[in-house]
Amino acid sequence: MIYLDNAATTKPCENAVRATEKYLFEKYYNPSALYTEGHELQSELKKARSALLSFVANENDFEWIFTSCGTESDNQAIFGFAKRGNAVTTMGEHSAVFTPFTELKNRGVVDARFAPLLPDGRVNVEKLLALVDEKTSFVSVIHVNNETGAINDINEIAKLVKKKNPRTIFHSDGVQAYGKLPFKLAKEVDLYSVSAHKIGGLKGVGGLIKRKSLALPAYLLGGGQENGRRSGTENVFGIMQFVLATNEKFSTLKADFERLQAYKKKFTEGLDKNVYTVLSGETASPYIVSVSAVGLRGEILLHLANDKGVIVGTGSACSSNAKNRYSRVILACGHDEKTADGVLRISFSSLTTVDEVEKAIEILNEIGRDLKKRMN
Amino acid sequence: MIYLDNAATTKPCENAVRATEKYLFEKYYNPSALYTEGHELQSELKKARSALLSFVANENDFEWIFTSCGTESDNQAIFGFAKRGNAVTTMGEHSAVFTPFTELKNRGVVDARFAPLLPDGRVNVEKLLALVDEKTSFVSVIHVNNETGAINDINEIAKLVKKKNPRTIFHSDGVQAYGKLPFKLAKEVDLYSVSAHKIGGLKGVGGLIKRKSLALPAYLLGGGQENGRRSGTENVFGIMQFVLATNEKFSTLKADFERLQAYKKKFTEGLDKNVYTVLSGETASPYIVSVSAVGLRGEILLHLANDKGVIVGTGSACSSNAKNRYSRVILACGHDEKTADGVLRISFSSLTTVDEVEKAIEILNEIGRDLKKRMN
Repeated sequence: MIYLDNAATTKPCENAVRATEKYLFEKYYNPSALYTEGHELQSELKKARSALLSFVANENDFEWIFTSCGTESDNQAIFGFAKRGNAVTTMGEHSAVFTPFTELKNRGVVDARFAPLLPDGRVNVEKLLALVDEKTSFVSVIHVNNETGAINDINEIAKLVKKKNPRTIFHSDGVQAYGKLPFKLAKEVDLYSVSAHKIGGLKGVGGLIKRKSLALPAYLLGGGQENGRRSGTENVFGIMQFVLATNEKFSTLKADFERLQAYKKKFTEGLDKNVYTVLSGETASPYIVSVSAVGLRGEILLHLANDKGVIVGTGSACSSNAKNRYSRVILACGHDEKTADGVLRISFSSLTTVDEVEKAIEILNEIGRDLKKRMN
Repeated sequence: MIYLDNAATTKPCENAVRATEKYLFEKYYNPSALYTEGHELQSELKKARSALLSFVANENDFEWIFTSCGTESDNQAIFGFAKRGNAVTTMGEHSAVFTPFTELKNRGVVDARFAPLLPDGRVNVEKLLALVDEKTSFVSVIHVNNETGAINDINEIAKLVKKKNPRTIFHSDGVQAYGKLPFKLAKEVDLYSVSAHKIGGLKGVGGLIKRKSLALPAYLLGGGQENGRRSGTENVFGIMQFVLATNEKFSTLKADFERLQAYKKKFTEGLDKNVYTVLSGETASPYIVSVSAVGLRGEILLHLANDKGVIVGTGSACSSNAKNRYSRVILACGHDEKTADGVLRISFSSLTTVDEVEKAIEILNEIGRDLKKRMN
């Protein structure tokens, strides 16, 4: 089976699991406990926060809070700060940001504003800035879009937003960027959401990076874990596995990035142009390629590929629950419904091999040509 | 090391981990994915919900929602329903209920009311009912108190609350009851919170049981997982491990319950009455025993026991973050500060052996007598 749906989830790093199983069977204590074994875990958690943070941010300016997933990180940021006036986001957000914004709008809590996208999936920065005014309490811009791979220059956007309104809190969903893109957070970014299972970690672990001087309201209240910012017993095993998996990712990050850029080029060039149109832009993340077999149904191609041993996605895995036939993001890029209907998302990981890419090209071309013939 | 802090967390069931590792390394897919492998996981999750629910509730009346922990389950229930008028809870709640109630009071959202406890840690039902009126939107009563082991008859209390106000939503924190007490939920209970890591599951998995006909607002919004009630990629491995661990617990639940009742009797009878006073009542859960070395400091005894290879707790592990010297729950039972200062919590699991109990008695008596001698 060739797995090319790594934007939905990745295979957990087995080495990291084996090396951290001791947190299941030996060091299984509650880190809040007062005895030595508890204290030791607490100090290991402190080191874990520091390690995961240091890859993307200056430890003098930022700190790390463990959550249960990227969705929780996004929700905590949004519901914590988008409380008055208006809040601005983009049409290219993951549903973990888009749905909370819609909810705030429906509840009448804030005037939620959605900035349009450029054809390649990046936000139209000029139009985003036009939505920011003196009443803007919160802005959220996705770092790497999960369907198109479009990369927003969040550091630059944060600077421009702060220039217009220095009191605005700036958040970014970094779930498809952390552990994949080479970057460091600028100090104008206040909050940044991360997920473990997209880069070899386990489902059930997330992180929220925050500027140190920012008073973040807790979203889960209780025992006061994570310095009072996120209650609930810490998922020690998941956290420790995440640290090791992430260490591995960052140690080869630049090489993987360049290698996958070459794979992406090979892949997009290898696809039959009579069947597939590449939607992702040249500057998009090399980890995600969005294509459309215009006139065919992406979902049918997904199943045909599945039968032949290639796993790909259609848009976001999460949006499959939403029962929306067409991807909101693809439509927001300006594509028509016919194009949106034919979308396939191919997403690589650092484990993807050139053989897998070549085999995937072959099979996608074969099933695409076949289906097209049958449709005529 | 003799581990007697099982109310804080338990050692995960290793058999269950080994049997479910395939969800890490083979079936690691995203359950929302449209291909066969995703669909299969979705149907396995459905079976998991059903299995975990069936142990304590009628599947015609109730359903199960996966969350990341007991704290999240409690928060979702409380913030979802305690929205108007007044909300009633007890002084014997875990901080995952107590803190959200305090927060709602501070925000001025509802009139939060706290019912007093009986000396053994159970809620004073008469006084609780006196707080319930026609404006009560929500009532939450802990099933088994995490510090004293006191068992509240939540089915009966729910019936009495509904008799006074049928529109009130009734919730119970069942974290220290599920997988330990023999019981079935009455239909008057609307919501019930559960945690995996207290009964051989992993940290990072929880459940919220709800009455089917109740419209539960989502607390984490996004991709619409768990039928829209809890977004975020499902923690498949953690969930599947929880199912197997729980199967094991329920298969021996009654036998364990009776055996631990005998251990508890042996333990309380074996403690030196010149040092220790038993605070837990006769009818309390056999899994938790609260004692006080009145006049001594519990925290010092905890460290002395730790040095001799016995791990016990002082009150709730979670409350150790709160920097409160005295346990709120122990004081609410009517004990004085001197008694509260001497508290130790000894908590068993189904794995606890009689040898461990005997050794713990010996060591606790030895260090207690020693410390008392040194204090004089």
